[in-house]
Amino acid sequence: MAGRLRLGMIGGGQGAFIGAVHRAAARLDGATALVCGCFSRDPANSRETAQALHLDPERAYPSAAEMFAAEAARGNDAMEAVVIVTPNDTHVPLAKAAAEAGFHVMSDKPAGIALSEVKSLAETLSVSGTAYGLTHTYLGYPMVWQARHLATSKAFGAIRRILVEYPQGWLSSRAEADGSKQAEWRTDPARSGPSGAFGDIGSHAHSLAEFVANSRMTRLSARLRSHFVERRLDDDGEASFEMENGATGVLVASQVCAGEENSLAIRIYGENAGLEWRQMEPNTLIERRGDGSVFVHRAGVDKPLCDEALARCRLPSGHPEGYIEAFANLYRDFAGAVRDGAPLASRGVPGIAEALRGMAFLEASVASAQADGAWTDIAAPSTGPDLKGLLT
Amino acid sequence: MAGRLRLGMIGGGQGAFIGAVHRAAARLDGATALVCGCFSRDPANSRETAQALHLDPERAYPSAAEMFAAEAARGNDAMEAVVIVTPNDTHVPLAKAAAEAGFHVMSDKPAGIALSEVKSLAETLSVSGTAYGLTHTYLGYPMVWQARHLATSKAFGAIRRILVEYPQGWLSSRAEADGSKQAEWRTDPARSGPSGAFGDIGSHAHSLAEFVANSRMTRLSARLRSHFVERRLDDDGEASFEMENGATGVLVASQVCAGEENSLAIRIYGENAGLEWRQMEPNTLIERRGDGSVFVHRAGVDKPLCDEALARCRLPSGHPEGYIEAFANLYRDFAGAVRDGAPLASRGVPGIAEALRGMAFLEASVASAQADGAWTDIAAPSTGPDLKGLLT
Amino acid sequence: MAGRLRLGMIGGGQGAFIGAVHRAAARLDGATALVCGCFSRDPANSRETAQALHLDPERAYPSAAEMFAAEAARGNDAMEAVVIVTPNDTHVPLAKAAAEAGFHVMSDKPAGIALSEVKSLAETLSVSGTAYGLTHTYLGYPMVWQARHLATSKAFGAIRRILVEYPQGWLSSRAEADGSKQAEWRTDPARSGPSGAFGDIGSHAHSLAEFVANSRMTRLSARLRSHFVERRLDDDGEASFEMENGATGVLVASQVCAGEENSLAIRIYGENAGLEWRQMEPNTLIERRGDGSVFVHRAGVDKPLCDEALARCRLPSGHPEGYIEAFANLYRDFAGAVRDGAPLASRGVPGIAEALRGMAFLEASVASAQADGAWTDIAAPSTGPDLKGLLT
Amino acid sequence: MAGRLRLGMIGGGQGAFIGAVHRAAARLDGATALVCGCFSRDPANSRETAQALHLDPERAYPSAAEMFAAEAARGNDAMEAVVIVTPNDTHVPLAKAAAEAGFHVMSDKPAGIALSEVKSLAETLSVSGTAYGLTHTYLGYPMVWQARHLATSKAFGAIRRILVEYPQGWLSSRAEADGSKQAEWRTDPARSGPSGAFGDIGSHAHSLAEFVANSRMTRLSARLRSHFVERRLDDDGEASFEMENGATGVLVASQVCAGEENSLAIRIYGENAGLEWRQMEPNTLIERRGDGSVFVHRAGVDKPLCDEALARCRLPSGHPEGYIEAFANLYRDFAGAVRDGAPLASRGVPGIAEALRGMAFLEASVASAQADGAWTDIAAPSTGPDLKGLLT
Repeated sequence: MAGRLRLGMIGGGQGAFIGAVHRAAARLDGATALVCGCFSRDPANSRETAQALHLDPERAYPSAAEMFAAEAARGNDAMEAVVIVTPNDTHVPLAKAAAEAGFHVMSDKPAGIALSEVKSLAETLSVSGTAYGLTHTYLGYPMVWQARHLATSKAFGAIRRILVEYPQGWLSSRAEADGSKQAEWRTDPARSGPSGAFGDIGSHAHSLAEFVANSRMTRLSARLRSHFVERRLDDDGEASFEMENGATGVLVASQVCAGEENSLAIRIYGENAGLEWRQMEPNTLIERRGDGSVFVHRAGVDKPLCDEALARCRLPSGHPEGYIEAFANLYRDFAGAVRDGAPLASRGVPGIAEALRGMAFLEASVASAQADGAWTDIAAPSTGPDLKGLLT
Repeated sequence: MAGRLRLGMIGGGQGAFIGAVHRAAARLDGATALVCGCFSRDPANSRETAQALHLDPERAYPSAAEMFAAEAARGNDAMEAVVIVTPNDTHVPLAKAAAEAGFHVMSDKPAGIALSEVKSLAETLSVSGTAYGLTHTYLGYPMVWQARHLATSKAFGAIRRILVEYPQGWLSSRAEADGSKQAEWRTDPARSGPSGAFGDIGSHAHSLAEFVANSRMTRLSARLRSHFVERRLDDDGEASFEMENGATGVLVASQVCAGEENSLAIRIYGENAGLEWRQMEPNTLIERRGDGSVFVHRAGVDKPLCDEALARCRLPSGHPEGYIEAFANLYRDFAGAVRDGAPLASRGVPGIAEALRGMAFLEASVASAQADGAWTDIAAPSTGPDLKGLLT
Repeated sequence: MAGRLRLGMIGGGQGAFIGAVHRAAARLDGATALVCGCFSRDPANSRETAQALHLDPERAYPSAAEMFAAEAARGNDAMEAVVIVTPNDTHVPLAKAAAEAGFHVMSDKPAGIALSEVKSLAETLSVSGTAYGLTHTYLGYPMVWQARHLATSKAFGAIRRILVEYPQGWLSSRAEADGSKQAEWRTDPARSGPSGAFGDIGSHAHSLAEFVANSRMTRLSARLRSHFVERRLDDDGEASFEMENGATGVLVASQVCAGEENSLAIRIYGENAGLEWRQMEPNTLIERRGDGSVFVHRAGVDKPLCDEALARCRLPSGHPEGYIEAFANLYRDFAGAVRDGAPLASRGVPGIAEALRGMAFLEASVASAQADGAWTDIAAPSTGPDLKGLLT
Repeated sequence: MAGRLRLGMIGGGQGAFIGAVHRAAARLDGATALVCGCFSRDPANSRETAQALHLDPERAYPSAAEMFAAEAARGNDAMEAVVIVTPNDTHVPLAKAAAEAGFHVMSDKPAGIALSEVKSLAETLSVSGTAYGLTHTYLGYPMVWQARHLATSKAFGAIRRILVEYPQGWLSSRAEADGSKQAEWRTDPARSGPSGAFGDIGSHAHSLAEFVANSRMTRLSARLRSHFVERRLDDDGEASFEMENGATGVLVASQVCAGEENSLAIRIYGENAGLEWRQMEPNTLIERRGDGSVFVHRAGVDKPLCDEALARCRLPSGHPEGYIEAFANLYRDFAGAVRDGAPLASRGVPGIAEALRGMAFLEASVASAQADGAWTDIAAPSTGPDLKGLLT
């Protein structure tokens, strides 16, 4: 019995946002324990964060390199996996260094800032044999699994049409000029990568569409734009796309939809039925059939759901589970896979295959947008046994 | 005092659908009276329809031409306006003949099957001086007017983004091969025109977007497709578009979204706020502001709404008004405009300007789709004083 | 073929509210025609109303008595039925006079101000043989019929529990002191009867509960109160109740729920399932089964609904029908029953049986409230063949 | 710096339900650490639970008494507070024993099975000086705090009316006869106390109503019933009630509303506005004002909410937080209060005052129901400085 999976975190110091969410998610099910971290380039911030988290002060490291070295030298209580919650440009270098040092990795998304570097990471992982998870949080929701279950059922018929969208409003004003650290790096090509809104949230819409339809996006025609002359990355855009299974769809991602919170939604239509799921009311999945009947699938351990959805519910129906619970499912399943030596994909955790496809999607989107919306192939990553991912 | 506006109807015999809806809408407010009709090419059907409607049997005519001639020869009780509810290919020829015979026209949409013929109709109308209304039903909803009021307010800021969509499911199977008359002519290019789903419902989405934003669509990149090899017209498609006011948007129209009822919806975002309106719950309009506050505007004569919205409500809030009431607003205002000799646009009724822009939109959509989604200008119709329409 | 049923209206002059709604509902399906009226005690108002309605000025009568006499003397075009939309105290006297003069009656609810007078009306009707309809509007909604269909099915199991409520907010302030005619008479015991909120809207909740459960309310414990010392009738109250079929329930009716529009709702639970219907979104009926599955039944001629529900839809699903359409169903079915000489109940129109039960409910509520909520029997009206009503 | 608050748990072994929820809630924010437990009377179960939770096997105790003794004897790492998640009859004896041994207590609700024993517990606590928290989970939701903030604002006006309800369906069949341990003890008077549905969930509705209105329930008229002859405790009931602030209300609690999940909801109306909150969509609070305007208050750290609501949000709006997060707020604030030596009520955690009022409510409900719904006073507990609770 190996106990909880021991995590170290890179990034997530005071003033950051997503680090605290990762930590809450990692704690929720008690499958992991945070044992150390390098929370900030500012050593004081890193120490104070460690203190607030009741960590051993000696394990608040000034750099990732020092953390890897020191933890590798520890015994039974050493860190086993690294959580990377820094800006995008550092994801791949850190993940590679961690893997080379023998640590498993749980990385925030998108995987990096270029397909080439993610391919290089894939090579590193194929050598290191360590696990690499990518926190596409929304794939942790039970009703997303139920949607996939229904959409890929025989009764649904061939999938024809996907409408996936992610409208947000938080970049409607120039938050990056008003001192928002989140906005600053997300609108900076050097740290965020080639795309802004598409990189930050279009990547979620892409992975959700592929996951629910259980098929790869192969081609797209995208339009990206920025609504401020000073903003160098897209804050808004859309793409028409085609899937390997023959479906077509529309993807909208925008951060200038003033007033919108976090309205990720997917609608998917087959020959005989359609499904609708909205992240802001995640416990409900609507199924409309061609015969006019309408079903509401609801989350809950007491509900008639597929096994994969049930395994991601903790509570009886009517006790709403939300974003942190979805996130926690990824951590719980990541820890379980590592403990069992099982491939992440076999436990439903997105990994390097999704990382490659996500980056290919972003690069194709940018290329198409630069070519005035020309249809552009999404560079198909190798899908050898190590890259199988969640699409089977 | 001239009493109710006296209507004759062309089409709408037994077995048809939309004719009965027009009649209910025309009756609701008591501003019009149906006095005659040529309800079907089948004289027995026409007579039986007239009888069921308690009309004078002598005024059930075998053809439009005979109706125009006979009614023109009557005295004080003669038909004053013609309602055209036939397939699209006959809209313009009938409207022109009616106008030339001195009758006002209320036509179902789209206006015709080619921009050229609608332009020719516009010329006829400029000579006849008779009124021409186009039943873009959804523009009769009070909360659509409230949306326009808010979207064009100073507080909203410049409009940036429009997401308009119209998913339906009724052509998910080949209804046209199963004896549905509706499906038959709507999938027949000869009777429906160059486009199927875009012509039938994309035209509604287009007019709604232009109306709420109070701006013209100028350019688009469209993709149209049919999901059955036998089906010759599009049953599904989307377009990216640009507006004269600088906004961009996405329009989705599909009739193969299995299980969807009639999910017309618009979301429109300005610098400072966003609006959401859904036709299936038409009495609610959501306004989200950039400061995080959310308002729900509700229909009702007792509500704090703009004058144009209030004028389109009959009941206190909480007594839902629906599709027929929206339709009835068009008939009531059409009758009022005719009685007062006022331009239809001054009363909020869509007319020849909307007809021209709608056809230009359809032709641009088809052209773009045939060019693999190339950006295509929407041929700007002349906007002389006779063609002002609802965009001011 | 007798043409449209010819109606005369008492009340509903300019400044009134519900008269215009009756007229719109009566017009919608073209099954009736308003031919005359006595719209106000003020002859000028009556004449102007008639003129605005395009009626023959000679048929704008100064009193109901004169209307009955004059119309009885006309020939083929005479009024056949009277619509009564005056304050409650005049309902029974007018209905009796109309019946005695040989006219059918469509009366607004509640039927009157005392059970004794409604019993007397029942006797008059048993002699006159004329029809008497009571506009419990909400029983005209298709999904209310679908709810009844499901709730009385074998699969539902015995009905156990009913939660019915009608919160409104319009009497949250003393509207009766601010010049609202509606509020004035509704808070005046002389004109409104023994109860205010219960009489005005509790009566709707009562009829809805009985109708959906298809059972009579037999006993209740009620609490009524007024939130202003000057207001002499209840503006707020609740009752626990028992049904003949063994179900128990809670009924809430209030006009001081500030901000509420017209939130009539019913939830009904059987051994195996539960139903929820809300008037403000009337086209949706939710069915939750004990096994955890959830169905949404939606209105529309294209939907899998029971025959009675389908017969009350005009449009395909997704084209919302509302309050006026529900009201119009009552008028259409009233006219059909009269034309066919069929009992109103056989066509689903509430009548004298519902009038008697409604008044017995109100009197029991007031008596119980005066006895500090003591359980009180609802005086069971005779249920001879003439009084069968909608509960069978 | 004292680190995380160290918890021991009584109950919550394998096969139980609520224990795991407490543990997840306690873990989420990292403010507490579970260090020991007596998870079951079955020592094997207790040991296995401890193992699954990665606890020191020596700290899986066979009885509460042994746990108290052993932990009291430990040094710096000893348990500081006890979490009680056993059936109701053991709550008070365990809480008293814990307090007497110097441990703080977090108890599941209701506090016990009789007002007298809870009074005795209050006396113990006044001597021990230890903290006593009661997990009225729903008071941990941010929007419940926002509701209270608005309902007690001057703009709201005097509170007039409260409608609070908690329909569930899980006892629609005799689950207690089908091997459900949850159902077994909850329907057993010896273990559950004098009331079933009212004790289990009516207690939540009561505390929610008092909390949001910030006033005490003083009097009620209740009806309780069981829908199975074999079931000895109520599974269904309702009460009319009066509050100290003059408001009246209706409380419905039922576990035989077939198909209902966990539909706790409160509506509260003042002179000028009304509020609606529904637990199953907990991040939304609707405010309707008397002037017809409607606001939607939404949870999220980026929203314009009162401080108390903001302090209970972790994420930006649109990232749904649910039941576990609300529960976690109680644990986080309990730990904070203990660490700071502050009264629980000052941090918004329900305690002994709520325990006393809750039991008084239950005893009054049962007494009233036995007296056929007679109005019954709710025995006012002493409200000395130690019993102030959340109502100020």
